[in-house]
Amino acid sequence: MAWDIEGTKRSLLEAGTGEFATHGLAGARVDRIASAAGISKERIYQYFGNKQALFSAVLNKELSTSLTAVAITGHGPSALADYARRRFDYQRANPSLTRLLFWEGLEREPFYADESRREHARNLVGEARAAVPELSEADAQEILITIITLVDGWVALQATDRQIAGLPSDENARAERRREFIVEAVRSVTSTLVGRKPR
Amino acid sequence: MAWDIEGTKRSLLEAGTGEFATHGLAGARVDRIASAAGISKERIYQYFGNKQALFSAVLNKELSTSLTAVAITGHGPSALADYARRRFDYQRANPSLTRLLFWEGLEREPFYADESRREHARNLVGEARAAVPELSEADAQEILITIITLVDGWVALQATDRQIAGLPSDENARAERRREFIVEAVRSVTSTLVGRKPR
Repeated sequence: MAWDIEGTKRSLLEAGTGEFATHGLAGARVDRIASAAGISKERIYQYFGNKQALFSAVLNKELSTSLTAVAITGHGPSALADYARRRFDYQRANPSLTRLLFWEGLEREPFYADESRREHARNLVGEARAAVPELSEADAQEILITIITLVDGWVALQATDRQIAGLPSDENARAERRREFIVEAVRSVTSTLVGRKPR
Repeated sequence: MAWDIEGTKRSLLEAGTGEFATHGLAGARVDRIASAAGISKERIYQYFGNKQALFSAVLNKELSTSLTAVAITGHGPSALADYARRRFDYQRANPSLTRLLFWEGLEREPFYADESRREHARNLVGEARAAVPELSEADAQEILITIITLVDGWVALQATDRQIAGLPSDENARAERRREFIVEAVRSVTSTLVGRKPR
């Protein structure tokens, strides 16, 4: 019987997503990933090298999935505001990517030379500039970083949100209010940048 | 000889800040904190209860210090923009608070009933409304959450910043550019909210 290498890798990435999103890089255990996937630990080292490399592969898979699920479409500042709205809903429903990004920020030295990550980023910047052609490349980058930190930062800082905004009687209503504030903030910042009236 | 309880607590909080900021809650080791402070592990349990409670005490101390170091002063949207600028410089120079906030977000269930945290938050909201009296309490809360997620989210997501904005030839110049973008974003959002022209 032929060994299904791609299927095995997929199972390991799947199990790795859960383990890394929950426990981070230092806290994750390769043997738990192997056992969750029902695959021997040796295969992980064989296919991915080490825990760090498996973390990178998991993060790239999640980025790739999110880029397909939430794309920038339409034209004008509203297109970026709407992207922020859909990213908010996506990250809230699928917090793994947000958690992986912040674990990475807390546990790894910042790095650069990941070609697959760079390509995700270039695609996103390209989409933003196609939607708002008045944006310079540098401003499109800044707006995307703004959207990511506003959206993912909020998903990651729930205790802080409660201290400041109070204990929500309805968590979905709270999230919806925050989402609309972010949407208007992105619209306002983008409109100001391209010299239009914000509303 | 009288035992200096306050001095001992201060030393433990100091050592705890380093340990928790570096390793997070699950990764922190109480015996390393004790040994860094030169104080027996039993004292930690005696004075603070457990690791969770020591983490909370460390976070409250850092919040309290930051609130004294960076206050909202002045009037109008520029006052909040300037607060964002000074918070950016402070968090970048003292990343412990940012790291503690995100560790908390990743490792703890969101909670609410910390009276000391609530008081920090109420003070900050009060300062924001004193600076921009047109802001409703709810909008002042949203703007503060916006500033915190923009500033602290950027400090925490350095790898993401590099993938999107490129590898900086000069890290200080990169931070300065990002800081000015955040400052203008806060000015724009606040101005739009209170119905003024953004610039």
